[in-house]
Amino acid sequence: MASLHALLILCVCATALCLVSNTEIDVDNGKDQDIFEINEAAGLDLVEGDILINEGEDRNTILGEKYRWPTTVPYVLDSSLGVILKVFEQFRLKTCIDFKPWGREPNYIFVFKGDGCYSKVGNRQMGKQELSIGANCDSLGTVEHEFLHALGFWHEQSRSDRDDYVTIMWDQIQEDDKHNFNSYDETVSSSLGVPYDYGSVMHYSKTSFSKGSKPTIVTKIPEFLDVIGQRMEFSDSDLLKLNRLYNCTTASTFLDSCQFEEPNICGMIQGDGGNAKWARVQRVKGGPQMDYTNLGQRQGVGFFMHFSTATGTQGDKAYLQSRLFHPKRRSQCLQFYHYNSGGVDDQLNIWVREYTTENPKGALRLIQKISGGLQGSWELYHVTLDVSDKFRVVFEGVKGRKPSKSGLSLDDINLSETKCPQYTWRIRDFTSLLATTPAGSKTYSPRLLSPDGYSFQIGLYINGLKDSPDKMTIYFHLTSGPKDNNLQWPCPWHQASMKLMDQNPDIQHCMNNIRMITTDPTKTSTDYMGKVMYFWDNPRKVGSLVIDTDGSKFYRGPGNGTSNYITHDRLKS
Amino acid sequence: MASLHALLILCVCATALCLVSNTEIDVDNGKDQDIFEINEAAGLDLVEGDILINEGEDRNTILGEKYRWPTTVPYVLDSSLGVILKVFEQFRLKTCIDFKPWGREPNYIFVFKGDGCYSKVGNRQMGKQELSIGANCDSLGTVEHEFLHALGFWHEQSRSDRDDYVTIMWDQIQEDDKHNFNSYDETVSSSLGVPYDYGSVMHYSKTSFSKGSKPTIVTKIPEFLDVIGQRMEFSDSDLLKLNRLYNCTTASTFLDSCQFEEPNICGMIQGDGGNAKWARVQRVKGGPQMDYTNLGQRQGVGFFMHFSTATGTQGDKAYLQSRLFHPKRRSQCLQFYHYNSGGVDDQLNIWVREYTTENPKGALRLIQKISGGLQGSWELYHVTLDVSDKFRVVFEGVKGRKPSKSGLSLDDINLSETKCPQYTWRIRDFTSLLATTPAGSKTYSPRLLSPDGYSFQIGLYINGLKDSPDKMTIYFHLTSGPKDNNLQWPCPWHQASMKLMDQNPDIQHCMNNIRMITTDPTKTSTDYMGKVMYFWDNPRKVGSLVIDTDGSKFYRGPGNGTSNYITHDRLKS
Repeated sequence: MASLHALLILCVCATALCLVSNTEIDVDNGKDQDIFEINEAAGLDLVEGDILINEGEDRNTILGEKYRWPTTVPYVLDSSLGVILKVFEQFRLKTCIDFKPWGREPNYIFVFKGDGCYSKVGNRQMGKQELSIGANCDSLGTVEHEFLHALGFWHEQSRSDRDDYVTIMWDQIQEDDKHNFNSYDETVSSSLGVPYDYGSVMHYSKTSFSKGSKPTIVTKIPEFLDVIGQRMEFSDSDLLKLNRLYNCTTASTFLDSCQFEEPNICGMIQGDGGNAKWARVQRVKGGPQMDYTNLGQRQGVGFFMHFSTATGTQGDKAYLQSRLFHPKRRSQCLQFYHYNSGGVDDQLNIWVREYTTENPKGALRLIQKISGGLQGSWELYHVTLDVSDKFRVVFEGVKGRKPSKSGLSLDDINLSETKCPQYTWRIRDFTSLLATTPAGSKTYSPRLLSPDGYSFQIGLYINGLKDSPDKMTIYFHLTSGPKDNNLQWPCPWHQASMKLMDQNPDIQHCMNNIRMITTDPTKTSTDYMGKVMYFWDNPRKVGSLVIDTDGSKFYRGPGNGTSNYITHDRLKS
Repeated sequence: MASLHALLILCVCATALCLVSNTEIDVDNGKDQDIFEINEAAGLDLVEGDILINEGEDRNTILGEKYRWPTTVPYVLDSSLGVILKVFEQFRLKTCIDFKPWGREPNYIFVFKGDGCYSKVGNRQMGKQELSIGANCDSLGTVEHEFLHALGFWHEQSRSDRDDYVTIMWDQIQEDDKHNFNSYDETVSSSLGVPYDYGSVMHYSKTSFSKGSKPTIVTKIPEFLDVIGQRMEFSDSDLLKLNRLYNCTTASTFLDSCQFEEPNICGMIQGDGGNAKWARVQRVKGGPQMDYTNLGQRQGVGFFMHFSTATGTQGDKAYLQSRLFHPKRRSQCLQFYHYNSGGVDDQLNIWVREYTTENPKGALRLIQKISGGLQGSWELYHVTLDVSDKFRVVFEGVKGRKPSKSGLSLDDINLSETKCPQYTWRIRDFTSLLATTPAGSKTYSPRLLSPDGYSFQIGLYINGLKDSPDKMTIYFHLTSGPKDNNLQWPCPWHQASMKLMDQNPDIQHCMNNIRMITTDPTKTSTDYMGKVMYFWDNPRKVGSLVIDTDGSKFYRGPGNGTSNYITHDRLKS
């Protein structure tokens, strides 16, 4: 399956929302269904809603070695579900669990598109072990939830000590569903020394199995009532438990994260060759006034790296080099924040220094030049590297000819062997937009082009739809583009993911909100004239004419997305 | 060997130095010798100063599984070195490495009092593997250093990338010693993905192997010049590397640490039965004005728990319960900070709730009552528990009859299966004492009584001795006490440890400065009359008469300690 690769990163900052982009199609038909609703609709009657236990099978402990998988789990992927691969990447970035296609190992996980979302708990030593990711289950958090079952975890609210933390509202639960709220003692399910976690991706939501709309679970600390049931990403405690169960101390695709809070600057060094230096500072007179890590939260605490171009001579250079890394893949993503308050022709150049048998002392290779950046704010950058030997990343600052009041700054660097997002859409002044945009008002991203040539656009209802306000809503549209004549229509099986970036400066602890859409070429819809059409057909055929702000005209196809991308409550938390 | 158990904890706070106590005797004859000086004085010629490599033996890699020990390392302890047992306790608290007396396993570590301090690197699979802790090697950091060699670690400055971080001053090193400054590539010594660590207990000090007094190692970041060579404790990176090499994800004696910074208060709960509540707050009008965790550093950031007795009725009770713990030993230490700004008869009671077969719902047992605490400051408490079943700790606040302007507060709770210190000596207004006390001026702790009945006292030169100022100097004295007639003299083989408490709120990341002394009954000294006497003899015989501030008289024996307990530079860092 090809990939549209249009990752939507909504960086919720104090004053701006930045959308780094991918694509979107309505994955849940406008409903924000949790696993248990999906399975109920599918007519499933599983233990705790999504746990598969066969007739006569013991509800056995996960404590023993026996029910653990090897740290590289063999799998067979039955259907083309791109979200599964995304989930595997999250495991690789944040844990020591890896996944490999089945190679005749005795036990493996068979991932298929069944009715609903469910799994067994632990490695049942049964050869082919089923894990279903059915219709509407293909959000990142839901797939992670099912894989955590497979890896050995029960639901968080079935912990033996759960009554200390939540109150089960038994009278709000249908009689048949009450068994789903059993709790299990430490001989069945260990909490591995980790405190009860309201934020676990394994926790029921407040209305799970409710016979009406009232809560079935009430948290003893009220502020967690809207936290439980999150299906965005692993929480920190989910990761801690997983890492303890599998003795993980490193992750396979994570290389480094640096916020420059400590004076050893994470082992980064001032490189040779420059006649100027990067300095570790808290603020610079001409900006930035504060670092990015602690932006707006803790004044006077955070640090960042700064190369001053306010003084000095044209051509002055300063090198900030990372420590040495040993890549395992051939592709890396360097992510960092950059504040350009220097002259308009000051340059930030990203190099790699590669150490090979031919170049034991390292050879420099230019990856990207960044200049003329936006003035007056921290901007997110993603740079794709393609290194396969021992290497360093080198940030070269070059002073230009034009006058400068300040210089170039860097903060919150993350390096991983993962894919960079391809498009970034940053919305400024997000806080004020949130306050002033009416529900039902849509904002569009610029038109973007996928690697295969499909043109697309993201539409965002900042304050949700008129009939469901306070839920940020995102739509993905195909648009007419320069290569449309050479493309296949309807657009077949392309996939896009949208990611709302979280503020944690360390990617291993980010809880990004990721949603995926897939362009099913057989999907049809009916237009306002009652005519049936293919949803992902050429926008010139099925779309409507749009006049852009610059006067240019183009066609925009129907929008597919989720009206429940994220609630404002979660956005704030 | 019996134990005096008088742990000296110098809690360096913003405004006060608190000495929680144990004892002291000059372990290094007034010289602050590092490993390499000790070994040089002992006439040893070892690789890198303290690494034992036999003739013909390969300088082999530590990377392979082969050179790792099992996570429980068998040992034979040849001589009575209490500091070794203290070091084992640090490993148990901070890593998953444990130690057990040799039970005929094929390989074990033989710890003996040889000439100097040295070890082999890694498990050499040689049966009895020697590790020497000779004279003057018995400080915690030095013993940890040697055990880290045995567990597989080389010196930090022999890392392949060390030239990025330090400059070796070759012209300051004696020709014969230059080989000690070799660096080794990643096939010999892996840095396990951890950045270069100036604070490692495995790093040479700035003057190691110097032919004079000038530095042989200069750090590229100048502020680390006086950091390298610390022999206090494992650094965070030392622990990270050790935990990665041995896949440690938990430590065997650590139970919990809570600073109340997160709203889930580490899984602690408001217990049943009380008619009042503990609240998570940032400040209280009648005090405290800030939490202990971030004391004076980040106003408005930290949280603590508070039970208000300013309103309400006599006998009002509030319960704060820990989550459930499963002890492995029968002895625990509960450490916490308590601020009493309530009425003089308000009470803080420490209970445990134990869950047994007879009491599946738990039975309460009172451990300690705390009342009439000092007003107006955070105070450190240690409470020894003796629990062997599943349990919780319960903090009960009780409002008294007397008027209260505020209430009882708790912060920075740590629970571990370790021994509590027996005595606490807290020196107030330490910062101003540091500024005003002349060098050579001595302050004495109250007289304390060891469990066996020996009376003792700690003497502290806050600003060092006249001839070595800026080095806090500590002496241990036996004093005359009520049980002297029933005791053995000279005091035979008692051991005391002094601990300078570090400010990290989590005991797993504390870098305490611990020094040990042992009362060797054969040790002699010469008095000012030229008469030879036993150093640890009855103070009435070998000591001098002292008149206390309250007019009482007692005898104080000669002082034994270290004039180099800690330099002010390290104290500040």
